[in-house]
Amino acid sequence: MTVIALLTDFGVQDGYAGIMKGVIWKIAPATQIADLSHAVPPQDVLRGALALSRTAPYFSAGAIFVAVVDPGVGTARRPLAMRLGKNYFVGPDNGLFTLVIERAKAAKDDIRVIHLDRREYWLPEISHVFHGRDIFSPVAAHLANGLPLEAMGTEIDDPILLDIPHPQRIPSGGWRGQVWEVDYFGNLSTNLQRLHIQGLEPNLTVHIAGRHLDGLVNTFGDRPPGTLIALYGTSDDLVISVVNGNAAQSLGVGIGEYVEVEPSQPGTRMSS
Amino acid sequence: MTVIALLTDFGVQDGYAGIMKGVIWKIAPATQIADLSHAVPPQDVLRGALALSRTAPYFSAGAIFVAVVDPGVGTARRPLAMRLGKNYFVGPDNGLFTLVIERAKAAKDDIRVIHLDRREYWLPEISHVFHGRDIFSPVAAHLANGLPLEAMGTEIDDPILLDIPHPQRIPSGGWRGQVWEVDYFGNLSTNLQRLHIQGLEPNLTVHIAGRHLDGLVNTFGDRPPGTLIALYGTSDDLVISVVNGNAAQSLGVGIGEYVEVEPSQPGTRMSS
Amino acid sequence: MTVIALLTDFGVQDGYAGIMKGVIWKIAPATQIADLSHAVPPQDVLRGALALSRTAPYFSAGAIFVAVVDPGVGTARRPLAMRLGKNYFVGPDNGLFTLVIERAKAAKDDIRVIHLDRREYWLPEISHVFHGRDIFSPVAAHLANGLPLEAMGTEIDDPILLDIPHPQRIPSGGWRGQVWEVDYFGNLSTNLQRLHIQGLEPNLTVHIAGRHLDGLVNTFGDRPPGTLIALYGTSDDLVISVVNGNAAQSLGVGIGEYVEVEPSQPGTRMSS
Repeated sequence: MTVIALLTDFGVQDGYAGIMKGVIWKIAPATQIADLSHAVPPQDVLRGALALSRTAPYFSAGAIFVAVVDPGVGTARRPLAMRLGKNYFVGPDNGLFTLVIERAKAAKDDIRVIHLDRREYWLPEISHVFHGRDIFSPVAAHLANGLPLEAMGTEIDDPILLDIPHPQRIPSGGWRGQVWEVDYFGNLSTNLQRLHIQGLEPNLTVHIAGRHLDGLVNTFGDRPPGTLIALYGTSDDLVISVVNGNAAQSLGVGIGEYVEVEPSQPGTRMSS
Repeated sequence: MTVIALLTDFGVQDGYAGIMKGVIWKIAPATQIADLSHAVPPQDVLRGALALSRTAPYFSAGAIFVAVVDPGVGTARRPLAMRLGKNYFVGPDNGLFTLVIERAKAAKDDIRVIHLDRREYWLPEISHVFHGRDIFSPVAAHLANGLPLEAMGTEIDDPILLDIPHPQRIPSGGWRGQVWEVDYFGNLSTNLQRLHIQGLEPNLTVHIAGRHLDGLVNTFGDRPPGTLIALYGTSDDLVISVVNGNAAQSLGVGIGEYVEVEPSQPGTRMSS
Repeated sequence: MTVIALLTDFGVQDGYAGIMKGVIWKIAPATQIADLSHAVPPQDVLRGALALSRTAPYFSAGAIFVAVVDPGVGTARRPLAMRLGKNYFVGPDNGLFTLVIERAKAAKDDIRVIHLDRREYWLPEISHVFHGRDIFSPVAAHLANGLPLEAMGTEIDDPILLDIPHPQRIPSGGWRGQVWEVDYFGNLSTNLQRLHIQGLEPNLTVHIAGRHLDGLVNTFGDRPPGTLIALYGTSDDLVISVVNGNAAQSLGVGIGEYVEVEPSQPGTRMSS
């Protein structure tokens, strides 16, 4: 059975995600539908892009992702569907797919992006405010039924890409990155990846918000509750956490906060 | 595969909606189950009726809806199952089905309402506090298995209907309605529908909370962030919103607030 | 189709539960997956144990439960899978399965507990922070595919069990128990079960937080809104509630609060 995974900022209160399932199953009854999240912060396209990028790699070949964080719904922004390697992505042309496209490019996957402009594959009536229901769900269902991507629109090569901050080298030989996500537990995820940092291990210092962390730990249980730690997160990203606590609250910082990782220097080494 | 859609006020914390899935799959293993919402405000039957009415039309013929917002659970209030046109609805007799019944009547759909009084189709032990598990889920599962509605109880013709507020004509030739729902984003949904308002377009004024909005916009992206706008919502209802903001908070109003729409008069026209 | 039910403290915001579904369907595509809850309070193993115990009995024979409330992820704590009677449970060895194991023992069910130590049944790369994705989901999927439990690890007989508080007899002939859960509605669930209390009915008094409740009611609708009541909950546990209200807030109490039930004595009998 084909899997369709849903990622939106609709919340779970009002039934909008449920409507999408109804629309999908009406067209493609045997589809399996997974909720990735419906609690992306409203209108936050970057958070949506991060959540999509974190989840998509774990699904099977052929899985179809419908992602809707869509402040421009009903305006001239284009509806898109794309094939990136062996998976499909459907949603608005506003940068939401930036990270999965970047990854596909890095992996030299086959990439095909379609501007959805064939209304016969949408619901008969199109609102100005709910394209998740009216356009993206039916298109995903037709893909699940085996309709070729190319049948539903016109190929384009200029999907909108967000200007994602990338880590920068610093003079000490380390890297400067940024917090780009605060998760449900208050952990601070950064755009620094294992590939940036591993050359500096094990003698490195992490600087954030005036605090200095000496080395990484493997996991939360390696330190007592309340300890500020740095470790690799679920996606091999550098994460700043408080064991059994909330790092965002403890440090009083959030998205955009700078984080530096550099080789430890004896004179400045200190525990947290 | 038959679809069963769940709508409750149980929240998602304690596993009650999950229990309903277990009960359903035990009786009808091949059923597809969709969560519409488990975050209807506790005991708020009208909100449940609105969420059900908004979501149900998008599901396929044969879909079964289990709706449980049930302050009278365990009292003498009747458990019901009904067929409205091509869909089934199962839940308590407290008005929760008012809007879907009204719509079925307006569409001249076939309507059959059954008082569930045949205990052999329920779980063996019936609590006083969780009929969603003990009665409604097993009945829905038996419907999914093809058991006729009529086998599970006695036909009635007097299900409880809520006294839903309907828009009223006002002397200026317009309509007075009310906010009847505040959604996840703080948008104010009203009981004024496109069919009430479209005769007044495009030169109309919307009055709410001392503010006066000149005309409707198509969608959020048509105005800058922070602008108070009126537009048609996902169900062709008149909605008052703040672009990228929260109208309920900005205006300090909620459910029950009056909204008037009338032909624009040059002397009173003003932008918001 | 095999059912896999998920219970975690991951929240629904960041997509972690969705990732688990992706991993499961990649290995066992025809599985039906139910969310029990992803809102167990973070790191609260007892609350997870209670939610699992409440939900598991309603699923069909063969259902597989993946439960992840895992403060020790990445440390030496063992990953487990077990068969308790006709169901399977997969998750960390930290007491999360205490109540379902206790119930299986009481029912004299066959019990087999496996320490998962065969990495070939896990994802190829194992993080230190997300065993729900890397170990527990793939193991559950292999179980769904029919792989024997015993193939995936080494049998043990010492899974960690929480020291769960049990009700105590008091001199008056009654029982002293404790609130051990506050649900979404603010109802106070206790560890006192119908089997403790029914011998005292109907002339009993419930004492909590300086209040004295004379007798149990059947259900919420039996008393006017605002009334403090005691009744049997969804799992035949004694629950203290406020009709259409929030007992935890009204009484200002929470988990651990003592509750006593004893035979009514004329001199102390009073209504709430």
